[in-house]
Amino acid sequence: MAAAAPPPPPTPTPTPANTLPETPIGNPLFVRIRLADKDDVPHLHKLIHQMAVFERLTHLFSATEDSLSSTLFNSPPFQSFTVLILEVSQTPFSPDQHHNNPIYPPIIRIVNLDLPINDPETEVFRSSRDGVVVAGFVLFFPNYSTFLAKPGFYVEDLYVRDCYRRRGFGKMLLTAVASKAVKMGYGRVEWCVLDWNLNAIRFYEEMGAEVFQEWRICRLTGESLQALGGN
Amino acid sequence: MAAAAPPPPPTPTPTPANTLPETPIGNPLFVRIRLADKDDVPHLHKLIHQMAVFERLTHLFSATEDSLSSTLFNSPPFQSFTVLILEVSQTPFSPDQHHNNPIYPPIIRIVNLDLPINDPETEVFRSSRDGVVVAGFVLFFPNYSTFLAKPGFYVEDLYVRDCYRRRGFGKMLLTAVASKAVKMGYGRVEWCVLDWNLNAIRFYEEMGAEVFQEWRICRLTGESLQALGGN
Repeated sequence: MAAAAPPPPPTPTPTPANTLPETPIGNPLFVRIRLADKDDVPHLHKLIHQMAVFERLTHLFSATEDSLSSTLFNSPPFQSFTVLILEVSQTPFSPDQHHNNPIYPPIIRIVNLDLPINDPETEVFRSSRDGVVVAGFVLFFPNYSTFLAKPGFYVEDLYVRDCYRRRGFGKMLLTAVASKAVKMGYGRVEWCVLDWNLNAIRFYEEMGAEVFQEWRICRLTGESLQALGGN
Repeated sequence: MAAAAPPPPPTPTPTPANTLPETPIGNPLFVRIRLADKDDVPHLHKLIHQMAVFERLTHLFSATEDSLSSTLFNSPPFQSFTVLILEVSQTPFSPDQHHNNPIYPPIIRIVNLDLPINDPETEVFRSSRDGVVVAGFVLFFPNYSTFLAKPGFYVEDLYVRDCYRRRGFGKMLLTAVASKAVKMGYGRVEWCVLDWNLNAIRFYEEMGAEVFQEWRICRLTGESLQALGGN
C-alpha cells in the first residue's frame, strides 16, 4: 500500500479455518496459499489497486504491472520482498507441478461455509493456469531487530477481497508468515494498523499481537527525499 | 533497537555539517561515514547496548557480539541489513585501503567546532585498525511500497553517542541513507519516532519528513509468535 502497511479489513470473528473437517459438508471451499511469481503480477496489480480504492488513497497509487514485475521476484523468496497468494476453488486443487514449489510447498485448507460465497469478480481473478480464483495476498520482507540481534518479517500488505472477508483468510495469511518466521528462527513479525480501525486492532490483539501506541512512522519521499539525498 | 526503530536523541538545531570550510579553523573534527563489517561488531554491540540504556529498554536487550556477527553482514550491502559507521578523528583520515570500499566510498566531512568535544569513552570506542573513534551508526534495510511499486529503505536504528549530539551527525547519517536511496531509484526512506519526542519530530519535519499520526505498529514476538506460527 501507499502508506505504511495498511492492514486488511480485519476478520473480526475469524472462523476456525485451521480445524478441517475430515469430510467436508455443506459448502466446502478449498483454499490454497502459495508463493507468487511474475505470472501473478496482473492479478496482484488489480488487488493492490483495489486496496488503494478501499483506503481512498488512489492519488498515491502509481504502480503498473511493469513496475511491479521489474521490482518484485528478483531475489530468492523470504530473503527479500516476498508475496504469498491466496486462492480459492470450489473443487479440490489438482496436483500441480508448477505450484509444488519445494522452497514453499503450498498450504491447503478446506473451509466449510454455511452458504456459498457470491464472488462478482470471479472471472477477473480467475487464474489462467489452473482456473482457481485469486482471493487475496500478503507481501512481506525481512526486517531486523538490533536488540534481539535477529531478523524478523515486516508485513507491508495483507489484503483479502471483500466477498472473502470474515472467513479467517486474513488470519491464515498472517499465520503463514508467522510460521515461516518461526521456522527460520526469526524474532518477530510486524505490521501497521490505522488507529481508528478498532476491529482490526481487536483482531490483531486477539491473535497475540502488541499494538504500540507511542511510535509514529516518519517518511521522506518525493521532493523531500530528493532535497535531502539528491546531492 | 528493541522497539520499532527508535530515533536517536535528535539534534534539534543541527549545525551545518555539510558546509565545509576550505581551511578548517578553530577545532576541526574530521568525520567519516563508511560501511561497517564484521570487525565493527564489538563497537556496534556497545552502541546498541548504550541505546537500550538510553531508552530504558535493557530488559528487551539480548544481542551478543556472536548473535550480531551471525545475523549481520551475510548479504551484499544495501540488498539486506546494512550498517554505516560514523567515525571521528582530530587529525585527517589517512588513505586506507580497507575502508576505500568501491561499493561505498567513505563520506568524509570536516566539522569546525567552537570547543573540542570531551569524549569520556574515547578508548572504549577507538578503532584498533586505524585509531579513529566510533561515534555512532545507522542500521537500515530495503522495504517495499506496493503503491509506488518501488523499494525504499527502512531505518531501524540511528544512534549518535551522547557527547557527539547536536552537531549535525544524525542528519549526516540520515542524509547518507537518503542519498543512497536516491541513487538506487528508491521511492522513500522511513523510520519511527516516539510521539513524545517532540524535538526529534521537529527535527525530522524540518528535514522534510512527514510524521504519520494514524498508523500504529503491531508486533508478534516471543510466545505470541510461537503460538500463532509454531505449528
